[in-house]
Amino acid sequence: MDTKTDPRVAELMEFVSIPSVSAQSAHAGDMRRCAEWLVRKMESIGLAARLEETAGNPVVVGKSPRDPAKKTVLIYGHYDVQPPEPLELWTSPPFQPEIREGRIYGRGASDNKGQIFAHILGVGEALAEGPLPVNVVFLVEGEEEVGSTHLAGFLDKNRGELACDFIAISDTGMAAEGHPTLSYALRGIAAMEVRVFGPAQDLHSGIYGGAVANPATAAARLVASLHDKSGRVAIEGFYGDVEEMADWERQAAAESPHSEAAIARQAGVSELAGEAGYSAVERIGARPTAEINGIGGGYQGEGTKTVLPAQAFFKVTFRLVANQHPENILQLARRHFERHKPPGVRLEILDGHGGEPFLLDPHSPPGLAAQRALEKVFGKKPALMREGGSIPILADFEKILGRPALLLALASPDCRAHAPDENFPVENFLAGIRLNKALLHELAK
Amino acid sequence: MDTKTDPRVAELMEFVSIPSVSAQSAHAGDMRRCAEWLVRKMESIGLAARLEETAGNPVVVGKSPRDPAKKTVLIYGHYDVQPPEPLELWTSPPFQPEIREGRIYGRGASDNKGQIFAHILGVGEALAEGPLPVNVVFLVEGEEEVGSTHLAGFLDKNRGELACDFIAISDTGMAAEGHPTLSYALRGIAAMEVRVFGPAQDLHSGIYGGAVANPATAAARLVASLHDKSGRVAIEGFYGDVEEMADWERQAAAESPHSEAAIARQAGVSELAGEAGYSAVERIGARPTAEINGIGGGYQGEGTKTVLPAQAFFKVTFRLVANQHPENILQLARRHFERHKPPGVRLEILDGHGGEPFLLDPHSPPGLAAQRALEKVFGKKPALMREGGSIPILADFEKILGRPALLLALASPDCRAHAPDENFPVENFLAGIRLNKALLHELAK
Repeated sequence: MDTKTDPRVAELMEFVSIPSVSAQSAHAGDMRRCAEWLVRKMESIGLAARLEETAGNPVVVGKSPRDPAKKTVLIYGHYDVQPPEPLELWTSPPFQPEIREGRIYGRGASDNKGQIFAHILGVGEALAEGPLPVNVVFLVEGEEEVGSTHLAGFLDKNRGELACDFIAISDTGMAAEGHPTLSYALRGIAAMEVRVFGPAQDLHSGIYGGAVANPATAAARLVASLHDKSGRVAIEGFYGDVEEMADWERQAAAESPHSEAAIARQAGVSELAGEAGYSAVERIGARPTAEINGIGGGYQGEGTKTVLPAQAFFKVTFRLVANQHPENILQLARRHFERHKPPGVRLEILDGHGGEPFLLDPHSPPGLAAQRALEKVFGKKPALMREGGSIPILADFEKILGRPALLLALASPDCRAHAPDENFPVENFLAGIRLNKALLHELAK
Repeated sequence: MDTKTDPRVAELMEFVSIPSVSAQSAHAGDMRRCAEWLVRKMESIGLAARLEETAGNPVVVGKSPRDPAKKTVLIYGHYDVQPPEPLELWTSPPFQPEIREGRIYGRGASDNKGQIFAHILGVGEALAEGPLPVNVVFLVEGEEEVGSTHLAGFLDKNRGELACDFIAISDTGMAAEGHPTLSYALRGIAAMEVRVFGPAQDLHSGIYGGAVANPATAAARLVASLHDKSGRVAIEGFYGDVEEMADWERQAAAESPHSEAAIARQAGVSELAGEAGYSAVERIGARPTAEINGIGGGYQGEGTKTVLPAQAFFKVTFRLVANQHPENILQLARRHFERHKPPGVRLEILDGHGGEPFLLDPHSPPGLAAQRALEKVFGKKPALMREGGSIPILADFEKILGRPALLLALASPDCRAHAPDENFPVENFLAGIRLNKALLHELAK
């Protein structure tokens, strides 16, 4: 069937065209419209679907007819998307999806509409063929891009109804184009902002320079204190809880199709950098980091303004690996900054959001089932991959529902999630539909 | 006479109300209007005044009738002012000057409109009394706050007409409120901007963090590399040309009414900081510095955005002392940054403006004449002070006209030059008028 006339592709494009931007309150109506669209879609394929209110955006729940003799898989996804800005960098408008060279371009095409919709259609096709090999519960939230604020509470309140044997999620990227991938780890996150205060107001850098501590210099010195020369994080105790990679993991990283050259090309750099002693794949997936997301202070305009700034700030996020905990890392970081504070300035340290890292044993029975399904659909042994990003809700799934998640990547490594020209290969979408069906069978074994 | 009704004060306020911001091209018209206002004012007191075009803002020249039997003093000042931003921190609008508790508040009130205007009025009052004891040439430029770009060329072209025996300038601050002060040294300056480039665009800090060098971190590390733990500038060779203070200078610094407590209070800090081994007065006046005027990169808004920024920058100005040279310092700094560049980023280093430091022997005959005039007007022995700021044109005066400048401070130590709520005590303004007349007499001796 021609891609452009495939009704499944047309339906996905309709889904993508709803501007369900959770971060922007102007889109509150679109959020509800999108959730309602999903409910109708789920009902049309034979699921018992409903919209559940939360204190934020509604959650969509869709369930197949329940056979108590069968195991149950919960499939999680999200219908909200990142803000599309900057709009001028999009080749086609973010909410008027367009197919070019086999890819659907639009905000949310990969993250997460294309991926969750493949699962929904997979279940629909399986249902059309007869009873499912496992019970299926869809849980599709509308606040993933703004921290899944109300999901843990929802899970907790509905833990009976959501009880399951497996959790499956497609919200990650393949190790290489078309290469089946099971992501068995995600990093956690801990965010912090440090504000450095000096003089009551900006001072003349000639009249006071040399006698008054400079908050911009102090902020820079604190940032510089975060790493040693080998690129390791220099916060005392930072690596204390890190579970080192097993030998098979280092082997898997070495064999990963996610090559250093590909990472450099995608990042647009000529040279990679980072902690000594680990490959780039290992540094992204299996090593914690301290990354400055923003720094600022003093004169930001053109040319020179000879001020000694009154204040400066930096924003840092730590990415964590098993078994680090965000609260502990924020505490160590706070102690580090207080200890390294240069004389003459005052610090204000603000803790931001945190999320636990995630690690699944891919050689566990559900991990093996997921790998079999991936191999069946893609005809290749799947790559085992640790992801650098964070999906903090995974830790809640594990804590509240008692099940770890299977992360079956469908996004392209070049999907531009969160960036202009986000896209999703039609091929991955159709493979995702087949993958869902294979997965239901493998999980039933 | 009541301050508020003194026509001299009213005239100064009119002068201050012209927004002659040389750094902002939107004010080009105001620059010319301000220069023309000055020409008219000089003519009204009996000077032969004119506006002289340059490739930048015009220069105003005003001359008293020339008596070849008398010595000549050139009085320099500037009619341009610093940008007023941030506007919200001003108590009253920067270009609607207001008198509060005996001080005129407005951008340029101290730097330099109030000070140069006191000299103009002083000459006006002296002329009204009869022939001047020395010939006077006023030279008032409109580019001091942007590096006096065209003044050296102007001096060179007009060196015959501007030939003089002395140069007098009031563009500095008193050692303490009401304490007469001869500034015998000023620091030089060398400005530089360093831009740090990493990935082609902002990256997801989870997906790439750990594998791609972070330009914000790199910029911070370069800034941190500028100083060692004792607060000394760590650029190799930086102190090579520094002329150490003579014993009488350290003595003068120790006795300076410009106390550490006063500096801290004026700066609004509870604690001073800087290079070990020198007092704050010495660090400001007699020691070179590396001061960050601005730093920026990545997310600047509220909360967290998990990006690995594509670029970052910092702006640094070095303040120099005799016998350092800006070109040499910029070269050493460039070499330093290139040598300390972290892997994985690219630097773009832009040299900014430079100015030579200035040092006058206060025990020379003109230095002694200036001290006598100060003592006569203020009734106290003047403090001998090294200033931390820079007036790069002083080196050009010395080189082109062959005369060092006498720096007779009129600004208050609390004048907030370059900052919001810049102000000038009415008392200093009136004392400046008297000082001008005393100086003309002392120089004639």
